[in-house]
Amino acid sequence: MSAHPFFERGRRDSVEDDFSAEELGLALNNVSLPPEALRYDLTPVGLHYTLSHFDIPALKPSHRLTIEGSVERPRAFQVDELRALGEKTLRVTVECAGNGRAGMTPRYPSMPWTCGAVSTAEWTGVPLPALLGVAKPTRQAKEIAFHGADAGFDSGVEHHFARSLRLDEVTDDVLLAWAMNGQPLPPQHGAPLRLVVPGWFGMASVKWLERIELLERPFDGYQQVVGYRYKKQSGSEGAPVRHMKVKSLITPPGVPDWYTRRRLVEQGTVEVQGRAWSGAGVAITKVELGVDGAWSDAAVEPRKSTFAWQRWRAKWQATPGEHELACRAADAQGAVQPLEPDWNMGGMGNNALHRIHVTVR
Amino acid sequence: MSAHPFFERGRRDSVEDDFSAEELGLALNNVSLPPEALRYDLTPVGLHYTLSHFDIPALKPSHRLTIEGSVERPRAFQVDELRALGEKTLRVTVECAGNGRAGMTPRYPSMPWTCGAVSTAEWTGVPLPALLGVAKPTRQAKEIAFHGADAGFDSGVEHHFARSLRLDEVTDDVLLAWAMNGQPLPPQHGAPLRLVVPGWFGMASVKWLERIELLERPFDGYQQVVGYRYKKQSGSEGAPVRHMKVKSLITPPGVPDWYTRRRLVEQGTVEVQGRAWSGAGVAITKVELGVDGAWSDAAVEPRKSTFAWQRWRAKWQATPGEHELACRAADAQGAVQPLEPDWNMGGMGNNALHRIHVTVR
Repeated sequence: MSAHPFFERGRRDSVEDDFSAEELGLALNNVSLPPEALRYDLTPVGLHYTLSHFDIPALKPSHRLTIEGSVERPRAFQVDELRALGEKTLRVTVECAGNGRAGMTPRYPSMPWTCGAVSTAEWTGVPLPALLGVAKPTRQAKEIAFHGADAGFDSGVEHHFARSLRLDEVTDDVLLAWAMNGQPLPPQHGAPLRLVVPGWFGMASVKWLERIELLERPFDGYQQVVGYRYKKQSGSEGAPVRHMKVKSLITPPGVPDWYTRRRLVEQGTVEVQGRAWSGAGVAITKVELGVDGAWSDAAVEPRKSTFAWQRWRAKWQATPGEHELACRAADAQGAVQPLEPDWNMGGMGNNALHRIHVTVR
Repeated sequence: MSAHPFFERGRRDSVEDDFSAEELGLALNNVSLPPEALRYDLTPVGLHYTLSHFDIPALKPSHRLTIEGSVERPRAFQVDELRALGEKTLRVTVECAGNGRAGMTPRYPSMPWTCGAVSTAEWTGVPLPALLGVAKPTRQAKEIAFHGADAGFDSGVEHHFARSLRLDEVTDDVLLAWAMNGQPLPPQHGAPLRLVVPGWFGMASVKWLERIELLERPFDGYQQVVGYRYKKQSGSEGAPVRHMKVKSLITPPGVPDWYTRRRLVEQGTVEVQGRAWSGAGVAITKVELGVDGAWSDAAVEPRKSTFAWQRWRAKWQATPGEHELACRAADAQGAVQPLEPDWNMGGMGNNALHRIHVTVR
């Protein structure tokens, strides 16, 4: 056991500031996708990221979903009754709106995601329009609010987690899901029933669904009008956080150091891989790999589903020494990742380039 | 939406120091049991804690386990061949030796666990003695080293994760496991094959098992002689970390604040629950609930298996105001949790009392 001189504790990679005990507590309370798990087309359930605002509720198998408000036929459904309305399975990449928050300076005190709040799963459930067909929204209904069973406080406001969609945002791909990767939903992913809104950041996909409410006015819940907003200054209303943005990540090559997670790579030809995705079902058309600032095109695999991430691959002739790898994606609508984060108070929607440092020996 | 005056960002609970970016990175890279998930007798797979020193390896279904060294019949086995040697299912509570590290001051720079690195699963596999019966250790063999497929650096030392047991520590309860809670092992829990050593801290239960080596001398791998030791000062050899210690946790009552995770509880009769366990298959005989320093006995449920945690329950008449709850367990050998951590450099084996602060309204 001779010590390799490369790795030193205390050597830092990118996120230089210290983190508070509360930030650590949130990091411990949620699951981040380990970077090597980008290798899986379909993220294994226990590796899929989670973001729970409050405690995971303990719901019974007899749990019922109520649909009410501005509908002609309010009623409650058990999951088995929803199954009778139809079933659809979709492969969907979901990213938390706060993914990359730890890379925004100054940093908002919240869940300090670096880059692991993105994963891909196959969700099975009934398309929301089938349920609406039964409940029959009135002509006055404009929005649909989704209330979870999870409850607590945020900034002094007591509430259940709840989000809404406008009725014109509801498509046949919005699912009330009871299964994930072919298995019943696990507790932390919303058992027994959750919403899945493909193409949107994760906050739209309300877990532990308890109540659906048709509204004739815009929904004013905390997570809709306060929580998930792009705000440049305190007191501003801010734009709502909606679809995911074009983004890509590198699956780090080589092996890690335990503490620093820095990577050591063997010299020679290295196949660098990663993932890229965008929002609203828009495809990725281009990914570039940057090595020490020199960019070249990567090969991008076709989509396996409208809403799933795409794999990219590029060859790199690795030479001994220190190197910076980066990746940059563009989508079919011409959106390109920015070099630096578009700062906002809540640390939302950071889709700046992913950069990693590696040492080649 | 009126703001409740109770919760304020920046108000801290117990772990006062800031954390480094590396500590945050490790917290993001591993799974901690959310405190409310102490409610499950059997931890759902994706909520079970994980501690991966290096990347999760991508092993093929054709992966083989080699047994070699001081044996009469060295050979390699596929998992299906191991199944033919017998099968046993055990319910086992496993705790990471570093659980509670964040509560030791000064704090060792490593995975900053607060209290979530403990979980309970049902493991299915073949007892290790059945494999040894086939390979036939020589008379000179004294130790058995278990080498994982996961590799990287720690403190400059490049190695595969590996640990050993003395042959006299091997019982019929030590399993080479291929299933967890009745399902094939997921990648992050050691697929396709891992060791499970009931009664020991988690480091003994080597994941992604690749090679078993019979030795005629004590194993000198990094994780055996450097990593998992109780050291009071730099340069000392330290005692080896082995069995778990007597410990208990409270399932926090009430609802959380998103950022601080502080709890708000309604006044009246509250049933406070939690879990308690010890090491080496020793039962818990007593748990006390402390409320603002006044202790009373909790009811302790019998064990559901020799190696599984036990549930405890106690009634509390909650009155409005601020309160501190704590719990303290004793085991059948008379070991009792200490009031304060027994500090050591690596932050190992912290079994001091679990204390939480709650506000009652």
